[in-house]
Amino acid sequence: MLFSRNTIPVDTELGVTAPQGFRAAGVSAGIKSAGKDVAVVVNDGPEVVSAHVLTQNRVFAAPVQWMKETTGSNYRAVILNSGGANAATGERGYRDSVETAQFVATKLGVEPAEVAVCSTGLIGELLPMGKIRAGAEEAIDLLSRDGGGDAALAIMTTDTRPKQAGIAGEYSIGSMVKGAGMLAPGMATMLCVITTDAVLTQAQAQRALDIAVEYSFNRIDSDGAMSTNDTVILMASGASGVEPADFTENLTAVAQSLARQLIGDAEGASHDVLIRVSGASSQEAGLAVARAISRSNLLKTAIFGNDPNWGRVIAQAGTVPADVAPFDPDALDVWFNGVPVCRSGGVGDDRSLVDLGSSRDVTIEIDLHAGQEVVELWTNDLTHDYVHENSAYST
Amino acid sequence: MLFSRNTIPVDTELGVTAPQGFRAAGVSAGIKSAGKDVAVVVNDGPEVVSAHVLTQNRVFAAPVQWMKETTGSNYRAVILNSGGANAATGERGYRDSVETAQFVATKLGVEPAEVAVCSTGLIGELLPMGKIRAGAEEAIDLLSRDGGGDAALAIMTTDTRPKQAGIAGEYSIGSMVKGAGMLAPGMATMLCVITTDAVLTQAQAQRALDIAVEYSFNRIDSDGAMSTNDTVILMASGASGVEPADFTENLTAVAQSLARQLIGDAEGASHDVLIRVSGASSQEAGLAVARAISRSNLLKTAIFGNDPNWGRVIAQAGTVPADVAPFDPDALDVWFNGVPVCRSGGVGDDRSLVDLGSSRDVTIEIDLHAGQEVVELWTNDLTHDYVHENSAYST
Repeated sequence: MLFSRNTIPVDTELGVTAPQGFRAAGVSAGIKSAGKDVAVVVNDGPEVVSAHVLTQNRVFAAPVQWMKETTGSNYRAVILNSGGANAATGERGYRDSVETAQFVATKLGVEPAEVAVCSTGLIGELLPMGKIRAGAEEAIDLLSRDGGGDAALAIMTTDTRPKQAGIAGEYSIGSMVKGAGMLAPGMATMLCVITTDAVLTQAQAQRALDIAVEYSFNRIDSDGAMSTNDTVILMASGASGVEPADFTENLTAVAQSLARQLIGDAEGASHDVLIRVSGASSQEAGLAVARAISRSNLLKTAIFGNDPNWGRVIAQAGTVPADVAPFDPDALDVWFNGVPVCRSGGVGDDRSLVDLGSSRDVTIEIDLHAGQEVVELWTNDLTHDYVHENSAYST
Repeated sequence: MLFSRNTIPVDTELGVTAPQGFRAAGVSAGIKSAGKDVAVVVNDGPEVVSAHVLTQNRVFAAPVQWMKETTGSNYRAVILNSGGANAATGERGYRDSVETAQFVATKLGVEPAEVAVCSTGLIGELLPMGKIRAGAEEAIDLLSRDGGGDAALAIMTTDTRPKQAGIAGEYSIGSMVKGAGMLAPGMATMLCVITTDAVLTQAQAQRALDIAVEYSFNRIDSDGAMSTNDTVILMASGASGVEPADFTENLTAVAQSLARQLIGDAEGASHDVLIRVSGASSQEAGLAVARAISRSNLLKTAIFGNDPNWGRVIAQAGTVPADVAPFDPDALDVWFNGVPVCRSGGVGDDRSLVDLGSSRDVTIEIDLHAGQEVVELWTNDLTHDYVHENSAYST
């Protein structure tokens, strides 16, 4: 399930309406100052199966609370808005999320508990409910079999482009995701809807989603932040009639494409950095080392400066406790873009052999020589543009 | 032992030669491109007691290895160099640290194990031993009772100013510290020498130092990095003849002054931020929440932009597991510079009431309403200058 070993072809033109049985729309309701900001995705069946993964943040938004109080296993529709996260908005915010679900349910003739609600944007501001209702009404009226692209546009915040991924075949998968900051473990400030016309039981759907999320969204870490609103929803219509044997692999490939697109559009980044930890004693050990490396502002600024600063790599590895990730510091090898700049914990080949300036993609590999496990994690560099975007975001 | 409640007056003009029984010198040996780069501090007694605290990083530098192999309890001298960390330099690097201690020991007529060695600068490069020897020789020849200031200059790297702190009285304490990046838990890229003419047993010295470090250097976190070289050394000469009852309190006050100076000179920072977590169920819980808040690049860039983004504060608190820091997310209160911008997990007073632009100092307080413990941690903002300095450091 490593990013670099995934050879399943994914089509980034296939959105949530690519699979049979789904309609979607995205409209401008005036919640953001410009652009589309309300999306609706509907599963027309014949089957209604869903699964979700929600933020692990203890401070979670009102729509997340609503979804925690539903089963999450039978969503017929999702309504999403950008322009406001409806987080830290108290009882009133929660009532707004419930009312949004009720409004959509009434319009579609389903139960409120069959409607998922997702919000993204600033924390601490109430949603303009008049605009939400008007946008929901307009979006539902516009639902169509080719509305996936508009829906993907409507969930963008600081994203510079919409993000979709899918696989077409005997059965199909389509998806959309948003998120460009706060990409982190236990997921990102990210809203993601994945649709499929495969025939799945709810247990199959949840298990496949858990695995796919673990090896995709939980393997990117842009800035160590974890959002209050993160949501991934999978909906299955069964419209293809196919009971697939390879659904988890294909779903993971789609989710990895989305995760890779998120990193590629992370706020202000100028390099995408694949951290590969090999020779780990366990997946947990490798992941702990990868996360420690990905969280070093010193390393991330060095990469911005095209500097293969391997000293900062091994210094970060050294911060992981030995009981979490056993390794001998004098055995560490580090490669930047294939050049072995650190051998056995000391100086390796000349760092001037490393070219970080010609390509956006950088691969840092560290071999712990402590086992056989390999972990990959995508992150990015820390740039002036990151500082600029995030110092000005709420003003 | 909170920073804000420490009322012991500390004099930032008092360096390592302020106490009786110490000589020091700092010289230019040409290791750095400009400025002094080798310092020596000697304890002339009558007593020779010392204690040290070393980096917790598993990847530690050659001089740290040397000090781990000495007892650390009877240092008569410390030699420090800037311009090279002697980290990730293998067997050869270790032999260089040993040889440095031997050279100084021979010149002073003491045992090599009585000489501490500290290095700071780039990782992965061998020290120019000819220059180290010449610098050590010159510094030893120049040792004097007023050499503390020169020694403080000689240990600077990206520091913009030397940092000293002391207390004069029946007995005295003096000190110097360097470090401006990689300030972090389990200490900073920091070399610190503290001297005193108090009469202390080795056990008293070590215990006082452990407490002082915990409430000072371990309560600052600039960028989450932990260095390979961090060292704090305390040396006691007993020359005052005083056996103090208040040594730990005074030592902590001195160490807090040094820690505060480190944050005030952190690379590229434009705001110094005191994070106060009150209402914590335990010190550990409060510290975990404080560290989570201090590590948010999103919050730190917001503060650079004079934006009291309390949503990012509570979102970071929410990433701390409930078994580490129990609290009710709906009970959280947050103040920026005294303005209650978040009440009971939701919107409080208007954020426009907060002025972050007029002063470098910012206080963020979060009340967890889960107990009586209070923890304070200093950090700073994330700025364009930080990105600039750290993307260009090794080039």
